[in-house]
Amino acid sequence: MKAAIIGTSGHIDLALGVRDRLPQVKFVGIAPGSSDEDAREFYVDQMEPSLIPYYDDYRAMLDREKPDLAVVAPFFFLQSRIACECLERGIAVFLEKPMAVSLEQLERLRRAHAQHSRPLCPMLPSRYQPELHAAWRAVKDGLVGEPLLITAQKSYKLGTRHPMYTHRATYGGTIPWVAIHAIDWVHWFTGGAIVDVFASHTTLGNRGHGEMESSGLCFYRLANSGAASVSCDYFRPGAAPSHGEDRIRVAGEKGVVEVGGGEARLITQGEARTLAKEEPRSIFIEFVRHIEEGTPMRITAEEAFSVSELALKSREAADTKAVVRVRG
Amino acid sequence: MKAAIIGTSGHIDLALGVRDRLPQVKFVGIAPGSSDEDAREFYVDQMEPSLIPYYDDYRAMLDREKPDLAVVAPFFFLQSRIACECLERGIAVFLEKPMAVSLEQLERLRRAHAQHSRPLCPMLPSRYQPELHAAWRAVKDGLVGEPLLITAQKSYKLGTRHPMYTHRATYGGTIPWVAIHAIDWVHWFTGGAIVDVFASHTTLGNRGHGEMESSGLCFYRLANSGAASVSCDYFRPGAAPSHGEDRIRVAGEKGVVEVGGGEARLITQGEARTLAKEEPRSIFIEFVRHIEEGTPMRITAEEAFSVSELALKSREAADTKAVVRVRG
Repeated sequence: MKAAIIGTSGHIDLALGVRDRLPQVKFVGIAPGSSDEDAREFYVDQMEPSLIPYYDDYRAMLDREKPDLAVVAPFFFLQSRIACECLERGIAVFLEKPMAVSLEQLERLRRAHAQHSRPLCPMLPSRYQPELHAAWRAVKDGLVGEPLLITAQKSYKLGTRHPMYTHRATYGGTIPWVAIHAIDWVHWFTGGAIVDVFASHTTLGNRGHGEMESSGLCFYRLANSGAASVSCDYFRPGAAPSHGEDRIRVAGEKGVVEVGGGEARLITQGEARTLAKEEPRSIFIEFVRHIEEGTPMRITAEEAFSVSELALKSREAADTKAVVRVRG
Repeated sequence: MKAAIIGTSGHIDLALGVRDRLPQVKFVGIAPGSSDEDAREFYVDQMEPSLIPYYDDYRAMLDREKPDLAVVAPFFFLQSRIACECLERGIAVFLEKPMAVSLEQLERLRRAHAQHSRPLCPMLPSRYQPELHAAWRAVKDGLVGEPLLITAQKSYKLGTRHPMYTHRATYGGTIPWVAIHAIDWVHWFTGGAIVDVFASHTTLGNRGHGEMESSGLCFYRLANSGAASVSCDYFRPGAAPSHGEDRIRVAGEKGVVEVGGGEARLITQGEARTLAKEEPRSIFIEFVRHIEEGTPMRITAEEAFSVSELALKSREAADTKAVVRVRG
């Protein structure tokens, strides 16, 4: 299988980091998603020794190399357009989230995916994170009862971000970029049974990052009459031990399961224990297997579209200060 | 100073537990807030050795004993009515929260308080909890910058609750009864600068407790463009070590302060540390001093009214599934 990389503005390490374990995948080229991306610099710094050819123009690369799979991570506003081009060429796509920065873009991508029916997977690896999967399994097995109260947190260090982040038009927003992971958790844990969303975000405290929101909070009413919240922020101090701090708590009438610090902990009437975790799995390796053998993904393309839509509707709720309906 | 107790359905231990440290306060009587309260049973079990006289009728007690101060904790729907009666008699009131179970009741209490200008303090002791006060002080001192993202949790064990809890009309609701503490934190940390509220609650999973909500979630937009969430639930398993689990996280552009497990922890660009705590202080002792010497309370009557109003408006938002305006 031939794979090409388009854009270096996202988590292409999810693919490149497991190259050694995928002898059947040959990386045939890397190109920027747009001429103003610093892809050449990234290439020289990190990829030149790999002998993967560098292209200035991704279309020229696709024409010449004819890859089976594209790893697509351009400036965020170009994600959906380039993914559409790849799908139209019959190429499977491993696509940086949120996959699209507007509902219109997302709808075009959804149509292109339906029409060309090539595999599509978002760079949303949470469902393969062992501690999150252990928590999900506990909920799925009914150990906490009906999940009626879910609270989740994504907190990142800010650092200094590329100017692409400082414009809504190119970045898309912090809810679609950061909160989306936790939105994926809520979607996963509830089976997507979400009724509506109310949300808020602010650019205050963004340390000179223009239109980029420093933080946000989303509130979801669930179809089971419960509720969920997702917070996102760039307020994690530089001195903190890890880049990000992910947390989720799921409570029901039988107990509570919580993920934090890389572990999942369950407390019920009868017991309190740290949950056993599976071996870590790579979403990219799973996706390659999915393309080759048709094995199911933990996040299907349909679920990916739902999660992206939910993230964009959450941003809309924050922008308009109004409750936005999610289903029905 | 003479003190009387009316009702045993709330946290009268906040007063009775510090009797030894208040030699100047003489408890002159205890009476139920209504004839269907189990006050006599409580009295026989726990208070008969104190030799405090028991009355069947609190009005007869007030007529005869003429207390200066009443500790008022009847069935929740009677809180405001009995508090009004006490204020009208010129008696200071230490009143179980939410102080009223409807906005109309609260307004009547507000008017009675304004008219008779006797001291009024709610049984909301958070501002005297050392770890919460340490976190509040850190925020007040600007250590996290502008507080733009606040997430808080109140989680209780359910156990088996008195039938009073199982009717909205007598109980008031889980948001006003449980979440109100965390609503008080949000009010305190933001100086009350809250714009509106969206919320949700459910009776599912309440293990036979009728109309009592098992859990709820409130979302507040803040005047500084930030946001806050408060979750409340009765889902803490019986096997858990403590009755309740309180948490709050306050994040701003300079850092994050968190309270949990009885400690406050600050992380900023330069440091991560557990905050020093003051000695525990009793809200009831502070209130007695306030009555005697006019020393300021950390929660004024005005703030108490705002917090109760906020809790009742949060319940309204959850009931109506609509955003409810808080200020202006």
